[in-house]
Amino acid sequence: MKDYLKNNNSRILEELFSLVRIPSVSASVLYKHEIQLCAQNWVRILLDAGVDNAQILNTEGNPVVYASKFLNDSFPTILVYGHYDVMPAEPLELWNSKPFEPEIRDGKIYGRGADDDKGQSFMHVKAFEYLVKNNSLQCNVKFLFEGEEEIGSPSLEAFCIENFELLKCDIILVSDTSMLSAETPSITTGLRGLAYWQIEITSAARDLHSGIFGGAVANPIMELSKILSQLTNSDGQITIPHFYDKVEKVSDYERELISKIPFNETEYKHNLKIHEIHGEKGYSTIERTGIRPSLDICGIWGGYLGEGSKTVLPSKAYAKLSTRLVPNQRYEDIAVIVADYIKQIAPTYIDVEVTFLHGAQSYVCPIDSLEYKAAEAAYTKVFGTKPLPVRRGGSIGVIPIFEKVLSVKPLLLGFGLESDAIHSPNENFPLDLFYKGIETIVEFYYEISSKLNK
Amino acid sequence: MKDYLKNNNSRILEELFSLVRIPSVSASVLYKHEIQLCAQNWVRILLDAGVDNAQILNTEGNPVVYASKFLNDSFPTILVYGHYDVMPAEPLELWNSKPFEPEIRDGKIYGRGADDDKGQSFMHVKAFEYLVKNNSLQCNVKFLFEGEEEIGSPSLEAFCIENFELLKCDIILVSDTSMLSAETPSITTGLRGLAYWQIEITSAARDLHSGIFGGAVANPIMELSKILSQLTNSDGQITIPHFYDKVEKVSDYERELISKIPFNETEYKHNLKIHEIHGEKGYSTIERTGIRPSLDICGIWGGYLGEGSKTVLPSKAYAKLSTRLVPNQRYEDIAVIVADYIKQIAPTYIDVEVTFLHGAQSYVCPIDSLEYKAAEAAYTKVFGTKPLPVRRGGSIGVIPIFEKVLSVKPLLLGFGLESDAIHSPNENFPLDLFYKGIETIVEFYYEISSKLNK
Repeated sequence: MKDYLKNNNSRILEELFSLVRIPSVSASVLYKHEIQLCAQNWVRILLDAGVDNAQILNTEGNPVVYASKFLNDSFPTILVYGHYDVMPAEPLELWNSKPFEPEIRDGKIYGRGADDDKGQSFMHVKAFEYLVKNNSLQCNVKFLFEGEEEIGSPSLEAFCIENFELLKCDIILVSDTSMLSAETPSITTGLRGLAYWQIEITSAARDLHSGIFGGAVANPIMELSKILSQLTNSDGQITIPHFYDKVEKVSDYERELISKIPFNETEYKHNLKIHEIHGEKGYSTIERTGIRPSLDICGIWGGYLGEGSKTVLPSKAYAKLSTRLVPNQRYEDIAVIVADYIKQIAPTYIDVEVTFLHGAQSYVCPIDSLEYKAAEAAYTKVFGTKPLPVRRGGSIGVIPIFEKVLSVKPLLLGFGLESDAIHSPNENFPLDLFYKGIETIVEFYYEISSKLNK
Repeated sequence: MKDYLKNNNSRILEELFSLVRIPSVSASVLYKHEIQLCAQNWVRILLDAGVDNAQILNTEGNPVVYASKFLNDSFPTILVYGHYDVMPAEPLELWNSKPFEPEIRDGKIYGRGADDDKGQSFMHVKAFEYLVKNNSLQCNVKFLFEGEEEIGSPSLEAFCIENFELLKCDIILVSDTSMLSAETPSITTGLRGLAYWQIEITSAARDLHSGIFGGAVANPIMELSKILSQLTNSDGQITIPHFYDKVEKVSDYERELISKIPFNETEYKHNLKIHEIHGEKGYSTIERTGIRPSLDICGIWGGYLGEGSKTVLPSKAYAKLSTRLVPNQRYEDIAVIVADYIKQIAPTYIDVEVTFLHGAQSYVCPIDSLEYKAAEAAYTKVFGTKPLPVRRGGSIGVIPIFEKVLSVKPLLLGFGLESDAIHSPNENFPLDLFYKGIETIVEFYYEISSKLNK
């Protein structure tokens, strides 16, 4: 296995680089062509890796790449999910190398998508390739790589329903999460949900001279600030009525387990260069990002953003607002609760529009299943230590869809690190975890085959 | 006079258009070349109008255009001040015609600078030209057009001190303000001062994944919103301690006079397309924009500003903050009072930088002077009704500098309207006020000559 990776190293990296080089950004319609190019590139890479067939399937939005290899009806069928779309690379000036010109520095692959999720999904294809070439594959395998994960997978539920037979499987593997650290491997057993809105405040019909009208006409940025400031309090709690109503109450026992997860506050603060941790009173950092919901302003703009001191009383101000949700909080309910509250607290002298942009349900994965045990064994073999089950903060929109439509609870085999800077400038993926991840996936196939192929 | 304007109409408009076509934006260093071009164009126009000499004089910043005509030691000397720099034209998408391609629609000249201040300063040059051609000029005239008014005239005080002899004069005329309406002419007798800051909030050292870190790391946009929301209250008062300490207390008598200024609230709201007027409790709209200070957020930005729903916990957030000041509020004091308060209320878990960008003192003009009386007579003759003295909201940084350095209280002969949309998209200047303004200035010269040339 190690020899295979060594002997094929430059080809393997070049294949991954060819994916990272394509700016398959799903958040903007400007990249429709690159989305297509990236899907085509994946088809080629999957065919080279040894699938029986690979194709681009249309959805209502960006296409899906689907590939499969069928061996034997008695073998379990594994569906590998990944996504080939990436987050926008902006702000570009903060990157130390170009986001779509991948390169290796200090033992890490740098580039947008190096981890999320081109790098991580690619590891599955290389593990599969090794098993095929080595004649040791004892599972049927299906690959489903979508192009809209970063915008909330709006087309995937319909796609899964329509292609129910095609996607039928026993196990779903997803590598789109991170571990606690390279030394403390972990398996993500819970994901937070997500709800995302855009807020638009309008005061006057046009930008005004702040000298002539300032003091007589409401300032939309000030009004937006006042609305946003009323969404949380100084104890880090969300103050939107009914927001916490359905939040899952985590047992004292589970909180005690969480408290035993290694966490180095000094190192955490040092890595992020923050003075203090700041969050909901009464909860630890791991709880705040795992079992508690959170609220963030992802963007804000209005008025003059240029150099110098232009005086203006702007006409409009905008914000992008998101909440991370936990089990039992349905994003459809939260979408309404938050929008209603914002409209309710907005003063009558301005116009407020709240547009719900997307949502994802939260997810909890059992840790007593055969596949979880197989994953645990595989990580232990490669990393030399048993992985910890951890609920993590990110949201993967499609995970609860798989659970609902395909009736399979996906297993989240993440190999990223928090320092990989996904969604940020200088996204990277450490080479050693890239190789260890491929090995772990191979070990997982061995484990699951021995457990299920009786 | 009317004949002269009619016979020379197309030439006069083409000269003004040639000024508007040059994007002499002072807020950005990108327009240094256009600043020079505009100054050169002014030199040509002034020479053609009949000055003895016209030249470009260097300052520490953008150059000044200076021109003069000397006739007779017994004549009074008038200094005409204007500015050839303009505000940035953004947001460009809201203009109905290109900002730097002036055109006439519905009896108005559209273009950035059509009013502020290319249009208004140009009227003085055309009035002067007429008087010269008509052999009826009985004053010595100096023109001083600067290129940094829109950024607070940072170089002009030093320039005035250094060129004290050159600028010596009896009367200073400035047309850079507006009237109550075309039917209710007014002369601006007071200007608010200005103080302007940029605020920068930093949370973590880089943008973070809001799923993984949201809830554990402070959101800089939320923190900025909370700070801004603490600067005013729901009664429209500024809540910064000591901000109002030195605000001039306007007498009940003067407030009674203000209450008699015609003001049509329905029309005001209709023009701005606002639901309600919003400002400081206990004061009328004219008081709020004339004799009371105000606070505005001129710009805000941070995080993801693009299309769609990118989730991110940003590293930084920024705002541009300005206050309009009234007599006795020194901007140097306010600069410190506001910055100190912001730093004081900012939580310890974020970094806050408050940078003072510029300031201007407020100004009050006497209404019993010879020149005010001459202006009153000139407006009355052309508009058919006596102009009202009104304190207005705008700030012109150089006015208090003239008062201080040259010991002359400038007279503000504005001919703009609030609907001219200065500093906004679709800036315009009504042609009838353009011609009436030129006539009024000519009448002013006749009045002042007859009063002073004894």
